[in-house]
Amino acid sequence: MASSTNNLVQCCYLQKNHIQTAKKNAFKAGFLVSGSRNGKFLRQSFKVKANVGSSGKGVETVNGKKVNGVHLGDQRGIGVKDCSFEEPDDRGVLLGRFVENRFVYRQTFVIRSYEIGPDKTATMETLMNLLQETALNHVTSAGLAGNGFGATHEMSLRKLIWVVTRIQVQVEKYSSWGDVVEIDTWVNAAGKNGMRRDWIIRDFVSQKIITRATSTWVIMNRETRRLSKIPDEVRNEVTPFYLDRSAIATEKIDHEKIEKLTDETAARIRPGLAPSWSDMDANQHVNNVKYIGWILESVPMKVLEEYNMGCITLEYRRECRQSDMLDSLTSMKTRHNKSTTSNAYGTTPTTPHLECTHLLRMQHDTAEIVRARTVWISKY
Amino acid sequence: MASSTNNLVQCCYLQKNHIQTAKKNAFKAGFLVSGSRNGKFLRQSFKVKANVGSSGKGVETVNGKKVNGVHLGDQRGIGVKDCSFEEPDDRGVLLGRFVENRFVYRQTFVIRSYEIGPDKTATMETLMNLLQETALNHVTSAGLAGNGFGATHEMSLRKLIWVVTRIQVQVEKYSSWGDVVEIDTWVNAAGKNGMRRDWIIRDFVSQKIITRATSTWVIMNRETRRLSKIPDEVRNEVTPFYLDRSAIATEKIDHEKIEKLTDETAARIRPGLAPSWSDMDANQHVNNVKYIGWILESVPMKVLEEYNMGCITLEYRRECRQSDMLDSLTSMKTRHNKSTTSNAYGTTPTTPHLECTHLLRMQHDTAEIVRARTVWISKY
Repeated sequence: MASSTNNLVQCCYLQKNHIQTAKKNAFKAGFLVSGSRNGKFLRQSFKVKANVGSSGKGVETVNGKKVNGVHLGDQRGIGVKDCSFEEPDDRGVLLGRFVENRFVYRQTFVIRSYEIGPDKTATMETLMNLLQETALNHVTSAGLAGNGFGATHEMSLRKLIWVVTRIQVQVEKYSSWGDVVEIDTWVNAAGKNGMRRDWIIRDFVSQKIITRATSTWVIMNRETRRLSKIPDEVRNEVTPFYLDRSAIATEKIDHEKIEKLTDETAARIRPGLAPSWSDMDANQHVNNVKYIGWILESVPMKVLEEYNMGCITLEYRRECRQSDMLDSLTSMKTRHNKSTTSNAYGTTPTTPHLECTHLLRMQHDTAEIVRARTVWISKY
Repeated sequence: MASSTNNLVQCCYLQKNHIQTAKKNAFKAGFLVSGSRNGKFLRQSFKVKANVGSSGKGVETVNGKKVNGVHLGDQRGIGVKDCSFEEPDDRGVLLGRFVENRFVYRQTFVIRSYEIGPDKTATMETLMNLLQETALNHVTSAGLAGNGFGATHEMSLRKLIWVVTRIQVQVEKYSSWGDVVEIDTWVNAAGKNGMRRDWIIRDFVSQKIITRATSTWVIMNRETRRLSKIPDEVRNEVTPFYLDRSAIATEKIDHEKIEKLTDETAARIRPGLAPSWSDMDANQHVNNVKYIGWILESVPMKVLEEYNMGCITLEYRRECRQSDMLDSLTSMKTRHNKSTTSNAYGTTPTTPHLECTHLLRMQHDTAEIVRARTVWISKY
């Protein structure tokens, strides 16, 4: 069961005038944060060792105690009532609740009319928005939320924020308008200085798992924009919640390197994509979920219409701001048999599917923003 | 109290290969639908007389009976349990419920992390998405939903859909992440062949009204793309729900003509906006809420940063598809005193504010898609 992966996070571009207040920076703690410093871009290179499904510790032995004794801080969540109940008839409430001895946080959502795409099912963007929302509510409901969006108290004191380096989402079935989904999320150690967050999405009625996701996080100083070790005080806050469980079976986790596309290797290039005001989030940066739309810009319409995205792996390398113009690059190959690689897609060996490699890069200097891999399953 | 307005809906462009199935077309019944026919664009011109706060009928006298006796059809709503309860402790559930003798439909939402903008408050796009969602759930929960998104049974039988011609949203306070809002919606007659839908949004904690909105709808045949009178059978379905109440005080409803901008009268033009795959909805058309983002593309960044949008009025004139490239035009004037017009914005007479006129038009032939007016209130 035990395996590990090395994720190379190459670039953090920092600019002084973009360094925000604690609150603003911490917004991204649930998701990607980066920035730039001194008006020009600096490059940092470092490695994150993500421990995937290792450690061997079971739920019962985490720190030798149950998590229920953990101080819960402000239980009121994000402006709503107590959300720590576990009664089955509370399933339908607006916020989530803890289950499984507080190791798992669960929230229920109805897929709304404006969250579906042209084929009337939830889009990948919607799924990732709901994963983000559940993760942030998890931190808040745990009483850990500091002065911002997802950072813990001890992190806020030290001006530290979470940044995501890699996320993989594997979809078996896309929900339709009006469907109810139930999202479970939990965290675990990822190597010495990383955190892993997993999610599963169930169809509420059938209780079948329809989506699985895993992600790797590291800690960054929001002012120096340098990666940081996890301070002991922060580790003490989060460790009681660690749960050694994999949403995606270890052999299906996408550890493979995502190739860097170039003008020569890309089959399609969609140049000159311009982030708009409405793509910006509370950090005045492009929200990481927005990248999905731009990745799709270089995917042929025929694929968007006739295939479902079965799996996406995103590797975040650099932030993007409203003034940046982007190029979207895609290359594609067809596979009629299940890949021998560790890519994950819940298809039978004979299902025809496509595998795409993507790059979002700056138009002016071709600096990489996001590399991605997608697997597409024919609808027919 | 009684007054009326004439909305001129000038253009419906129809194309045969875009005519969808009943289900697909009806998706837009809650919001804008249009199309094109025979591979080229046709122009239709017609008038809609919208009765605003007239009729003089009180709630008690609508058809001389209470609405509670109305056949409710499928009460299960959109895949969730019964949503017709009125107990106060059901406020927090995922779907809405009827209040005030079933004349008003109420739904509660938490503002999510991904629904806020750079200033950490809900965006206008978010508000309009929530209005749309509440409207569609109203129709479904009333048991009226036919074979689609918002059309009634009798409309579906006749291949009829609702199309919105004008909407006005007036915001007094934008909610923050985690805030809970409560949305009320109801419908009324608008002239002989129109329907009016109003909404109010309350802050759940303070119960203060923070947003008011009104809209005018007409019926269209989804195949011929021609406007239709309301058939008696449809009128009989919806009339029992009619409520003669104005969300926006009559004198604050924006009846004023929205000027058509040109290259000469626009202060700023942002050309070449390209709808993306993710802007399309289940009807393979641009969702009407998406227009807001494009309108903002020609608003100066300084305005977006330093002002709140206090009011928007949108006049829909033509559909937009993914292959269309758009220009966004804006003109602007500053006002330091409350306007003498009927524009609505909850400011004191001395609050400095801006009034903008907008146009979204096709790039290739300058055909109008949406005219809009916005009023902006300084944050400082």
